[in-house]
Amino acid sequence: MRQQLNQVIESIKPIQHEFFELASQHLDQLTKPPGSLGKLEDIARQVAGITGEVMPLFNKKAVIVMAGDHGVCEEGVSAFPAEVTPQMVLNFLNGGAAVNVLARHAGADVVCVDIGVNADLEHPALVARKVRKGTRNMAREAAMTREEAVQAILEGAAVVDDYAAQGYSLFATGDMGIGNTTASAAILCALTGVDAGLAVGRGTGIDDERWRHKVDVVKKALEINEPAKEDALDVLAKVGGLEIAGLVGVILGAAKNRCPVVIDGFISSAAALVASKLAPLSASYMLASHLSHEQGHGKLLEAVGLEAMLQMDMRLGEGTGAVLCFNLIDAAGKIMREMATFDSAGVSRS
Amino acid sequence: MRQQLNQVIESIKPIQHEFFELASQHLDQLTKPPGSLGKLEDIARQVAGITGEVMPLFNKKAVIVMAGDHGVCEEGVSAFPAEVTPQMVLNFLNGGAAVNVLARHAGADVVCVDIGVNADLEHPALVARKVRKGTRNMAREAAMTREEAVQAILEGAAVVDDYAAQGYSLFATGDMGIGNTTASAAILCALTGVDAGLAVGRGTGIDDERWRHKVDVVKKALEINEPAKEDALDVLAKVGGLEIAGLVGVILGAAKNRCPVVIDGFISSAAALVASKLAPLSASYMLASHLSHEQGHGKLLEAVGLEAMLQMDMRLGEGTGAVLCFNLIDAAGKIMREMATFDSAGVSRS
Repeated sequence: MRQQLNQVIESIKPIQHEFFELASQHLDQLTKPPGSLGKLEDIARQVAGITGEVMPLFNKKAVIVMAGDHGVCEEGVSAFPAEVTPQMVLNFLNGGAAVNVLARHAGADVVCVDIGVNADLEHPALVARKVRKGTRNMAREAAMTREEAVQAILEGAAVVDDYAAQGYSLFATGDMGIGNTTASAAILCALTGVDAGLAVGRGTGIDDERWRHKVDVVKKALEINEPAKEDALDVLAKVGGLEIAGLVGVILGAAKNRCPVVIDGFISSAAALVASKLAPLSASYMLASHLSHEQGHGKLLEAVGLEAMLQMDMRLGEGTGAVLCFNLIDAAGKIMREMATFDSAGVSRS
Repeated sequence: MRQQLNQVIESIKPIQHEFFELASQHLDQLTKPPGSLGKLEDIARQVAGITGEVMPLFNKKAVIVMAGDHGVCEEGVSAFPAEVTPQMVLNFLNGGAAVNVLARHAGADVVCVDIGVNADLEHPALVARKVRKGTRNMAREAAMTREEAVQAILEGAAVVDDYAAQGYSLFATGDMGIGNTTASAAILCALTGVDAGLAVGRGTGIDDERWRHKVDVVKKALEINEPAKEDALDVLAKVGGLEIAGLVGVILGAAKNRCPVVIDGFISSAAALVASKLAPLSASYMLASHLSHEQGHGKLLEAVGLEAMLQMDMRLGEGTGAVLCFNLIDAAGKIMREMATFDSAGVSRS
């Protein structure tokens, strides 16, 4: 299975610099001071390099929401009970969650994947790719075996392969899993060395006392499991989550298929950091969406080398921040296709 | 004329707290941790308070682009020649500028107003409200008389009255005027006391030498004109611009008509600061859009008490950052209308 993962990693190529350059040249002909559209111009260049088209159209877009449960919930780290994970999966499948509303608004589809929910779920729209029913409690033992982590990554990449084959060309990451800010904070600590007190946030909304307890749980998980900083797969398996591993796969799968992938908040960014360690070339396929309210998110983005577009104080996950950015990517495409040039509009240059 | 302005100011009422509260209550029923959608929730509450509807629909939206010239361009403060102002107005009217592309993307109309362009312009789509052909050179004398400034404000408010009467209910501010970052920096200095070296930015893209010269020009304008910090109208007239005064009118007009108004970048925020000084209640009708790359923009937003949603390093003006935020306002409305509640979806609470 590790060999299959290596094949995915090796199939990721650098972005195509000639298309990046062609997009740059076109942008500098448009009736505006050079660079004045800021990140919209960065997006236009990056997606040209990724897709090999100067003005790509993204007709089919999807947010892949990976759902999984966390054994560490036994320790009482979350404001919500663990049964909310399967309840919210049904909410996604019925179209009533925030990510459904915002995806419809963006003209995108929600793909809900059961990669590790601790319940038997059946629904015609559910993508069933369960690796196991939740992780083990990382405060006592490794959350996953290395093989389980690799399998979850491969499942995530396979989901993107399926949708890319159906013509989807723009992806976003989303997550659902009570307890997953605890796992993401542990990944941040293990891979960057940042202190647990700076990595752990309030998640869905815990008070000071429970926050201090959550910090202790993360410290304990790191002490017991001793994840190896230089081995991202070891970190992912020992203190990660099934949905985080699935999202690593989504990101690698998008890069393999030469599709841009928009990274949501804290949990997705933990997956992005693991992906960038496993396959450094995958980072060029990522676009950061928003800077979440969750403490530690900025540090994750910095570690991957990404900058957020939106600052909305959101902290919901599900892919909600990422799908909001689809509109900005479409806007960048329209700038490329529709804006007048200095010559065509008869406007003087500086 | 001052009496007419007082009438506009007095017609601005506080936002309706009962609708703000009703929106708040609805948001807390939706399947998400309370407050987890951050500024999307703030927007939903604010627009409910502004419009007196818990779930308003904005079917007709417009960005009002005020265009005017600046006598201070004689001093060589900009990277672009002054003739670009009328050239870009024609570009707006022909639909080729960045704001046209982004407004179409947002389902909004561009309303281009000649409030003070130093050229004779004719076009069926142009809104002709010229007060005078450009301002005087503020480095030598007052840019406008007090009467001219008041007239420009009233013209701006009248444009919004016209469009509100046609059913437009969501507005954004936009500007065009070579030299207007110089005037906006001078307004920032005069109204907040911040140093010119911290208020003046690179505008459309000037080098270090010209930046130092621009700082000196702003200092000279402040010395010669001695605008009165406590008299925003005095500041606007002496070191402002016709399009900035027009935008003050757009903001006051939107507040008067109980419509939200999205504030674009540096120039629009200078207008927002003047509007908030003239009519403090108008601030509750404003939504800040983006934090621009222009130095000093953050200080203007802070002075008005606004927080940006987008961080895109944009520095184009025209209303480009503001129209990008129409999509976020529509998204907030859909969250209110379409999301499932805890009860309807059978999801457990914390």
